[in-house]
Amino acid sequence: MTDLADIADVGRDPRRGGYSRHGFDPVERELREWFVEEAERRDLDVYPDRNGNIWAWWGEPGRDAVITGSHLDSVPGGGAFDGPLGVVSALQAVDLLRAQGFRPSKPLAIVVFVEEEGGRFGVACLGSRLMTGAITPEAACKLVDAEGITFGEAAHAAGFDPLRMGRDDRALTSIGAFVELHVEQGRGLDVPIGLASSILAHGRWRYTFTGEGNHAGATLIEDRRDPMLPAAQMVLAARRTATHGARATVGRLVPNPGGTNVIASSVDVWLDARADDEQRTREVVERITTAARAAAAEEGCSVRVTEESWGGTVFFDPSLISHIRSALGENTPTLPTGAGHDAGILAAHVPTAMLFVRNPTGISHAPEEFAEADDCAAGVVALATTLEHLTR
Amino acid sequence: MTDLADIADVGRDPRRGGYSRHGFDPVERELREWFVEEAERRDLDVYPDRNGNIWAWWGEPGRDAVITGSHLDSVPGGGAFDGPLGVVSALQAVDLLRAQGFRPSKPLAIVVFVEEEGGRFGVACLGSRLMTGAITPEAACKLVDAEGITFGEAAHAAGFDPLRMGRDDRALTSIGAFVELHVEQGRGLDVPIGLASSILAHGRWRYTFTGEGNHAGATLIEDRRDPMLPAAQMVLAARRTATHGARATVGRLVPNPGGTNVIASSVDVWLDARADDEQRTREVVERITTAARAAAAEEGCSVRVTEESWGGTVFFDPSLISHIRSALGENTPTLPTGAGHDAGILAAHVPTAMLFVRNPTGISHAPEEFAEADDCAAGVVALATTLEHLTR
Repeated sequence: MTDLADIADVGRDPRRGGYSRHGFDPVERELREWFVEEAERRDLDVYPDRNGNIWAWWGEPGRDAVITGSHLDSVPGGGAFDGPLGVVSALQAVDLLRAQGFRPSKPLAIVVFVEEEGGRFGVACLGSRLMTGAITPEAACKLVDAEGITFGEAAHAAGFDPLRMGRDDRALTSIGAFVELHVEQGRGLDVPIGLASSILAHGRWRYTFTGEGNHAGATLIEDRRDPMLPAAQMVLAARRTATHGARATVGRLVPNPGGTNVIASSVDVWLDARADDEQRTREVVERITTAARAAAAEEGCSVRVTEESWGGTVFFDPSLISHIRSALGENTPTLPTGAGHDAGILAAHVPTAMLFVRNPTGISHAPEEFAEADDCAAGVVALATTLEHLTR
Repeated sequence: MTDLADIADVGRDPRRGGYSRHGFDPVERELREWFVEEAERRDLDVYPDRNGNIWAWWGEPGRDAVITGSHLDSVPGGGAFDGPLGVVSALQAVDLLRAQGFRPSKPLAIVVFVEEEGGRFGVACLGSRLMTGAITPEAACKLVDAEGITFGEAAHAAGFDPLRMGRDDRALTSIGAFVELHVEQGRGLDVPIGLASSILAHGRWRYTFTGEGNHAGATLIEDRRDPMLPAAQMVLAARRTATHGARATVGRLVPNPGGTNVIASSVDVWLDARADDEQRTREVVERITTAARAAAAEEGCSVRVTEESWGGTVFFDPSLISHIRSALGENTPTLPTGAGHDAGILAAHVPTAMLFVRNPTGISHAPEEFAEADDCAAGVVALATTLEHLTR
């Protein structure tokens, strides 16, 4: 049986622990090939779309199609479940429906989106953003990874034509419903399965503090313009500002040049901020920016703020949710999430819902991310039931 | 004529600016080959020692030898002068002495030390430390670069046998005087040439803050144990604590795993601390450590502190200094420096001095590092005069 164990050895990160699988890197490309083989083994009709995503169809593609799926990439040093669980569960749900002799009366497909985490090119949900037009292909193809390779170059190396990328109206108009199964990422579920109600408003900003690189021993303290100081102040400001359910996180900070005996000439700090609604999130970021500017000025440094991504609050489709609840049981809980998903991007265009599988510790985006085997099995049953309900 | 321009294209760092040349990396190995060719072109007798350093002899190696030289590696994104100026000036000084028809009556050699900056393996002055026994070959060979390659592996790949490394008594007992020419690294000189009096006490410490990796969106603020918070507090504590001429710098900080949408599970912070004397430096580090521990505890994190290198105050040899001043002119200023050098390591074993070439901006360890051509020429003359004086 297809299982997460099949790919447990692919993309392990010996330094960070867990997995580092990033859009179009050799590891993610190996996982894509694995998915294509799994889909072909099931006689699904597999093809990539123009934007780097892969589709596997049960039945002829066409109107009112029911789509499920997720992604195979991870954050750097991420867990085994975030993404792949949705893909593996979709394959298992197809197996289950076939074992039950079910034949869908609507087209059904599994989709694998590329670069959902933004772990390589900085913008999350890149495949679904391209497909829905939430990012232009020009902007996407200019995104650069840590080695200076652009998304356009990486996509081209993987066999995709950057000039053909962009909003895919044919795909969007064919979708009747999209349901993504995903491991829950907080401690919000005390039963195996739940339904997502909404996603917090969410954005990413890069703060570049610029000072003057110099020698760590020979430069007097009073002669310094050290951008590490305002960068540190900003980390603390982010925490202070994240109140009333808002979240503000600095998980990535890169001093340049980054030598032990060198005062940095610049420091890049990435802020991940989320809150209940758009206005509250903007307020949080503005307060952090004000603090960052003041701290930079105090040290004789400058700061440039770049919005790398932005998404307002996502509300999943209430009638699709109630339809699925009627299939899974009215006791199935619904819960909001702070985590972004391709489903959150698609929700602006097509009826969209999400199934969550319980996360006993609430840990995610880390090697310790975990879901019980029984809960994962319940997820497959719930997804199969949902697909059956939506395509019969 | 041999010049810094000859190597101006080797090891440029397009991302950071300036140069990234690190011990035994392909770029530093190219520079070593360039040095060997330059020395052979002058009929100097060139050979590597057991510890990865290169020696080029004018005359038979033997007792009471006069040695000059420096290093060819750089910090990440460093300047063109720090290191290579001392090597190029030594070659030019030999040319000048020969053009004047001078023949030394003592052995004279140019030495190129490996991995002076510690930019790759974390410990500065690795070649001179190995030669003097300041680090054991066992400890040195276990040092690891960012890619997980050990110094032992890198040395072996460059043709050195890690088993033969270690204190080189034959070399040490042969040295009558060591004089390193170097670009000054502060704004301490208002004339072209000066002499070093002392080097601040100096050490490097790694602080590893460990918390709990988790999802930046799904994890409530009150559930977090984010090691980035105490890391930021420590950066600020380092600045607060560096008073009365002490220096404390964080130029390198690496969150693990380092994803934008990931609360770090751990953060490594490197502290570079220096002060007039050993006790004062220890006090500065202890105060920073106390602040780091308190900040870690407040966030539910732990912190582990590792001393990566340590050196007490270095005083250069007073009689050698006065000897050189008598040759260069009694007005030649002497000045202390905050920067570490191979000369500082050798000073504990052999009579050692340093010549500084004026740095008009005081910027060093950065692409903007600069010295005027006239000042560099004055450095060559001063070095040639010194060598002539010491070997006649």
